[in-house]
Amino acid sequence: MIQHTSPMPPLRTSRWFNTREPITLDALRGRVVVVHAFQMLCPGCVAHGLPQAVRLREAFPEDQLAVIGLHTVFEHHEVMGAEALKAFIHEYRLSFPIGVDEADPSQPLPRTMAAWNLQGTPSLVVLDRQGGLRLKHFGHLDDLSLGAILGQLLALSIAPETLADEDRHGAGSCAGGACGALNP
Amino acid sequence: MIQHTSPMPPLRTSRWFNTREPITLDALRGRVVVVHAFQMLCPGCVAHGLPQAVRLREAFPEDQLAVIGLHTVFEHHEVMGAEALKAFIHEYRLSFPIGVDEADPSQPLPRTMAAWNLQGTPSLVVLDRQGGLRLKHFGHLDDLSLGAILGQLLALSIAPETLADEDRHGAGSCAGGACGALNP
Amino acid sequence: MIQHTSPMPPLRTSRWFNTREPITLDALRGRVVVVHAFQMLCPGCVAHGLPQAVRLREAFPEDQLAVIGLHTVFEHHEVMGAEALKAFIHEYRLSFPIGVDEADPSQPLPRTMAAWNLQGTPSLVVLDRQGGLRLKHFGHLDDLSLGAILGQLLALSIAPETLADEDRHGAGSCAGGACGALNP
Amino acid sequence: MIQHTSPMPPLRTSRWFNTREPITLDALRGRVVVVHAFQMLCPGCVAHGLPQAVRLREAFPEDQLAVIGLHTVFEHHEVMGAEALKAFIHEYRLSFPIGVDEADPSQPLPRTMAAWNLQGTPSLVVLDRQGGLRLKHFGHLDDLSLGAILGQLLALSIAPETLADEDRHGAGSCAGGACGALNP
Repeated sequence: MIQHTSPMPPLRTSRWFNTREPITLDALRGRVVVVHAFQMLCPGCVAHGLPQAVRLREAFPEDQLAVIGLHTVFEHHEVMGAEALKAFIHEYRLSFPIGVDEADPSQPLPRTMAAWNLQGTPSLVVLDRQGGLRLKHFGHLDDLSLGAILGQLLALSIAPETLADEDRHGAGSCAGGACGALNP
Repeated sequence: MIQHTSPMPPLRTSRWFNTREPITLDALRGRVVVVHAFQMLCPGCVAHGLPQAVRLREAFPEDQLAVIGLHTVFEHHEVMGAEALKAFIHEYRLSFPIGVDEADPSQPLPRTMAAWNLQGTPSLVVLDRQGGLRLKHFGHLDDLSLGAILGQLLALSIAPETLADEDRHGAGSCAGGACGALNP
Repeated sequence: MIQHTSPMPPLRTSRWFNTREPITLDALRGRVVVVHAFQMLCPGCVAHGLPQAVRLREAFPEDQLAVIGLHTVFEHHEVMGAEALKAFIHEYRLSFPIGVDEADPSQPLPRTMAAWNLQGTPSLVVLDRQGGLRLKHFGHLDDLSLGAILGQLLALSIAPETLADEDRHGAGSCAGGACGALNP
Repeated sequence: MIQHTSPMPPLRTSRWFNTREPITLDALRGRVVVVHAFQMLCPGCVAHGLPQAVRLREAFPEDQLAVIGLHTVFEHHEVMGAEALKAFIHEYRLSFPIGVDEADPSQPLPRTMAAWNLQGTPSLVVLDRQGGLRLKHFGHLDDLSLGAILGQLLALSIAPETLADEDRHGAGSCAGGACGALNP
């Protein structure tokens, strides 16, 4: 296991959506955390990153895994403000908490993006239950690899057989892509 | 962690493809094992199960995770024989080991499928490094959930930053779905 | 418009599925005809060609457009016989008529495939209402291009507005991908 | 063929992208015209409508078919202005002409959208070579059906055999989804 001695710089945000109170990394301690850094006008974020975040929210229990969006605007600042993001979140029906990375008047990169040294969007940042950095990935990461990283950090205990129930199909025929057997 | 006291019944196969020697579960001890039970004429296997097995083979190192196909024919036996499977494997360019579940003249279900109590195809069976059953799933299982189970069992150690390299794009522009930032 | 003076060689088939009587090109005169030449173990046919044939059957009226499958086996003959095809048609729930191209003991190519000079599978053959050859295409052809060819041959008369009905969504909001406006 | 006696109301736009001069329907006379009405924050437009417009541009010759985008903003006006659209067009690399439907201060619907009585976004409007309305469709229309309508209006003449060349694969084997035959 890799040791991470340097602490992760805190989130610096100017506004939050889908949460009553601003979210801090400290408050998420105890849960595995996935931060999805995106821009609303980034095609790869819209086509791949945000749908993956939605799948993450559905695949894992909320008390074990926190999924956070972070709007890290580093270009076209004037047309990706908080009101534009609000409309975007509404139209795309995103339900997980999304923070607006705080703009830095002295440079294009917003503050969290700069402090975390993110290369662009989409980026994935994964923290363990102690807040330690476990993954920082620029570009799309496939679901199997991301799932493997989270599975390790979550140390999920899944009982054999239990997952089979929801997908059972009629025996002795093929339907919905699966073929059932007549067990003797 | 769940205890599994009963041992997994052995693979009972009549023929193997893509391996020099027949494969036994005992010989796989020490690696996590995914067995993909399928039939070559099962639409869900062709569309979802086998492509997932191919992705598994690409996403995880072979000395850590074994991916095995098991051709569990329980219907249309006369047209899914070993020669038909051989042509199928060739045309679909499957490269991982695939065993033919041994037919049982006294009933439609082949022997391993019956002993493992599989409900149909596609089915996923996951064993831990000690050969203990960890998952038995009938139907399609999404990549995030399967990845999470395997990640836990593999206890992968992934260094942060390392995954980002292959996906880097030019800074300051969007290409291939990702938008790069000009880091100061 | 291109003139085709040479007549199309007739279908030579040994068996038919999904039709009470064998189908001849002469009997289809008056309708536009799409023949989908495929093999059940051809990955591109299963992934792209046959789903397109299913979409064709759904998109056009049956009395205007005939969709015919033709099983043109030129390799792995011993495992793609009529009984194997029957199971395949059943499992994939194909409902349009499918003929088995007659095998030629003297060479690998079946008789219709050879007479029509098809290069492989999947292949698309389109005939006009007079039975004249209008398209012979090896490999996948995108839906827009195929639709354009058929639209020309069918000389479809589509009333404006009529297509909109099935897709109407609630006004003033986005759902199912479409955003409705509140018309004044 | 359906007669359309009433002329189509003209485009009323406040700005154009990807064209040197404003586009009028009169100037397009002689070509078949597809107008894709969309909003940049409409998920169905981004996921389905605009990619279809891109495919249209690639599938048909530009001197036969005109593909025009029309940004018909009827909600979230304040965050879908021309500058936001400009950034969107740049990031999504849209290359066909896109006009901004002129806002009407007295109501949410912009002027062309109101005059054409469009129900929402995405909407497809197809005009024939004489400028007559041939299709007005709200929601997604599949490529086969759209292709058929355009094929009829374009009266494409496609020579048989010609389309096959680009897709030829090696004979006697399967690659890229297609299986080639060894012609004798």
